Amino acid sequence: METPYKTLLELNPDSSLPLYVQIANGISRNIQAGILKKGVKLLGSRQMADLLNVHRKTVIAAYEELYSEGWIEVFPKKGTFIAQHLPTVEPISFSTNKQKPQAESPHLFVPQNKIIKIPPVITQRLAFNDGLPDVRMSPREELARLYAHYLKFGESQLFQYANPYGNQRFREVFSQFLNETRGMNILPENILTTRGSQMAFYLVSQALFKENDEIIVGELNYPTANMTFESLGLQLKIVPIDDDGIVVDAIEEICRKKRMVGDTPIKAVYVTSHHYHPTTVTLKPERRIKLLTLAEQYGFYIIEDDYDYDFHYANRPVLPLASADRHGLVIYLGSFTKRIAPAFRVGYLIAKPEIIHEIAKHRRIIDRQGDTILELILADMLEDGTLKRYTAKALKTYRERRDFACELLKRELGDMIDFKIPDGGMAIWAKFDDKISLETLSEKVGKKGLYLSNGLAYPNLNACRMGFASMNFREMEEAVEVVRGSV
Amino acid sequence: METPYKTLLELNPDSSLPLYVQIANGISRNIQAGILKKGVKLLGSRQMADLLNVHRKTVIAAYEELYSEGWIEVFPKKGTFIAQHLPTVEPISFSTNKQKPQAESPHLFVPQNKIIKIPPVITQRLAFNDGLPDVRMSPREELARLYAHYLKFGESQLFQYANPYGNQRFREVFSQFLNETRGMNILPENILTTRGSQMAFYLVSQALFKENDEIIVGELNYPTANMTFESLGLQLKIVPIDDDGIVVDAIEEICRKKRMVGDTPIKAVYVTSHHYHPTTVTLKPERRIKLLTLAEQYGFYIIEDDYDYDFHYANRPVLPLASADRHGLVIYLGSFTKRIAPAFRVGYLIAKPEIIHEIAKHRRIIDRQGDTILELILADMLEDGTLKRYTAKALKTYRERRDFACELLKRELGDMIDFKIPDGGMAIWAKFDDKISLETLSEKVGKKGLYLSNGLAYPNLNACRMGFASMNFREMEEAVEVVRGSV
Repeated sequence: METPYKTLLELNPDSSLPLYVQIANGISRNIQAGILKKGVKLLGSRQMADLLNVHRKTVIAAYEELYSEGWIEVFPKKGTFIAQHLPTVEPISFSTNKQKPQAESPHLFVPQNKIIKIPPVITQRLAFNDGLPDVRMSPREELARLYAHYLKFGESQLFQYANPYGNQRFREVFSQFLNETRGMNILPENILTTRGSQMAFYLVSQALFKENDEIIVGELNYPTANMTFESLGLQLKIVPIDDDGIVVDAIEEICRKKRMVGDTPIKAVYVTSHHYHPTTVTLKPERRIKLLTLAEQYGFYIIEDDYDYDFHYANRPVLPLASADRHGLVIYLGSFTKRIAPAFRVGYLIAKPEIIHEIAKHRRIIDRQGDTILELILADMLEDGTLKRYTAKALKTYRERRDFACELLKRELGDMIDFKIPDGGMAIWAKFDDKISLETLSEKVGKKGLYLSNGLAYPNLNACRMGFASMNFREMEEAVEVVRGSV
Repeated sequence: METPYKTLLELNPDSSLPLYVQIANGISRNIQAGILKKGVKLLGSRQMADLLNVHRKTVIAAYEELYSEGWIEVFPKKGTFIAQHLPTVEPISFSTNKQKPQAESPHLFVPQNKIIKIPPVITQRLAFNDGLPDVRMSPREELARLYAHYLKFGESQLFQYANPYGNQRFREVFSQFLNETRGMNILPENILTTRGSQMAFYLVSQALFKENDEIIVGELNYPTANMTFESLGLQLKIVPIDDDGIVVDAIEEICRKKRMVGDTPIKAVYVTSHHYHPTTVTLKPERRIKLLTLAEQYGFYIIEDDYDYDFHYANRPVLPLASADRHGLVIYLGSFTKRIAPAFRVGYLIAKPEIIHEIAKHRRIIDRQGDTILELILADMLEDGTLKRYTAKALKTYRERRDFACELLKRELGDMIDFKIPDGGMAIWAKFDDKISLETLSEKVGKKGLYLSNGLAYPNLNACRMGFASMNFREMEEAVEVVRGSV
């Protein structure tokens, strides 16, 4: 049987690859697939050129490539052959194609992590999301101007590899900013940039803890944080929450008992002290003081996730625990997501330098470095007041939206949902009446262009977070109408 | 003793925080630090205002904040007090300050990963680096234009959270590109974007392997890859390399023996098939075929790191092993680092969809998502030919630089270094004469403004990679002169 070169080589005249490369690629691919076998004589260049309808020089160039790479051999007066020294390859026969290949050993089964869930991307126009900012209020003009500036005029050095700690100028500006606005007392070396809060708690867990270390979290805690800790083998100890946040006495109780029986101590407490996720409440002063005292007394870290510091409506934002940390036990983390937009991935970790150094090693192998240019842009925007101006504007808008949302939900859906007015953040924690299945409702409204969580992240509660910050008044009215019309 | 409020509160009139917030922050911070004790009476608003030299209304506003948050109590006719219900905090006394705090339990020692090394950032103007591109040739104008475009006119949706697989349009365009130019046969769902090759091998190791799984690497292998695998608990099996790349017969030998004695099979082979790192050689056809056959026969994955595919000078770039993979055993990875610049972090993993899906889960908890806008920009540049044009230009320049570098090194340093002309890539693998200590030389030239590796990454060889791509002719001449003058 003649070799069907025309079919095997599939030349494409519109390809960006030259024809001779296509021919060479096609022949080497077919050798590796076992279709063209070792020792087989190829057509002469003239014949091949005629068959493929290309210039003879093209075939010669392809053969030269293949020869120089070792795929073919040329014997004067005899012709061109697939190299004799190549190993034999058994082609996949079509009849066995549908069977599982024999060779596939059991250890090649792909593992299945059961802990990590990938959330769906929200595609609906309207959304009571988890508490996301309105990206229509992002400083896009300023970002465009600064990106263009650095891309056109930035020093070459900026485009080379950087260190894994983060851009030095950003670390300087941001440490000053935190000292001034959040009562911290830190230096640039206390900061490591990350791609967001998510990477921050991954890095902390990976660098500081080992499998089976115990970490305390509140009931109903931010599911993504739990998922990250558990996926890395940490054991979660759950303590209750109430209207003042995580119940610190319960933390003390666990630590005390462990010490009494000589058990391995708790390694860390994860807390969203400013706005508890999901219930939005702020940790009260006496609990803050007590938590810090316990950390010293029992020697555990506090991982303080301050995911939306700036957006507090009831009064000034409450200073983070980190501002009152005297022994370097608080590892403070946050991100710029809520102030800029989720697509711009810069977060940060604040801790004592030896922790930062250790975490930087892991950052090195995960991600190598941060986003130099974006970090520089943020430094500029922190320094020239752009970020402050935008945040103030957003704060005003989100406060109005919170007020509007609470009033609207009370008036229109007061018979089916129960919630407290949140002092801060971008979401309401809403409990739905038992007569309504949130899961069914979520599916119904989803089809009508409104995202509403199905509440499955908090089993058996028929409750979810309803973000209000990303919709304007009219959109919220529309959204509520969709909900009304779906029950 | 009177409480020294003026010192404790440290008001700063130039701060961006309003004075009343500064006062409230200062008082709550001092309560938490144990300086202001529970039950203590605060100065009346008038007295405090006089003392701090602020308006009385400012103090009243601060007290209102503190009251609403629960830090202080107000008793009509009696005054304002630090809340009685707060826990007692022992202030740090200065005398014990230098001692290790008693409370710090041993389990709070910060772990010390001994495997991961953070490389120094190269600051010298001239550099024989590891093989980096010349960032002065980056398409900066195009990047600036496209960034400005998406930032100003891109749909809002782009700025929200995205999925962890990567931007869909990028995946579509890039899968077509790989099919057309690298002989692959993939769909968008075979692609996951990463922040670079580094994240790619971290993710593969984390998602597919478990502690103590064995992975084969060649001798002298890319140290950062080894460091990543080892840090995640994988066991490295080292096989020899020679002038044709990794010795595949040695891989067969290991697998055969393991099967014979019923040992746990090898899980994966890591290979830089196109340009072996560090020695730059290309894996020969017979070894390619054999490696693929062994993978089928013994059921291991091939992790093919194609870190600088485009830059091959001897002939067309050799098609990746992935192009001839018939059983989904090759996990192919690479990045755009060499084509754009290291600061732009987009890499990719190509594998069968069930592997991609599993890896995406881990990406979710490490990094949440990729860089949507940069991925879109790359899609545009792939589609409109910008990237092809730039790559062709760079290829031409780097080929000239390779030729120039090889000639120059031969002529000027031929008595002290030995190397082969590399067929591709951006570095020469140079062995230094035993009479010269590369470590000493590296230090000397470093002080004169030239980076040259100290060779410690490859112990006892007195050898290093000398990147030639990032310097122009004149800079290379300067660099060689510095070396000459330092021996």
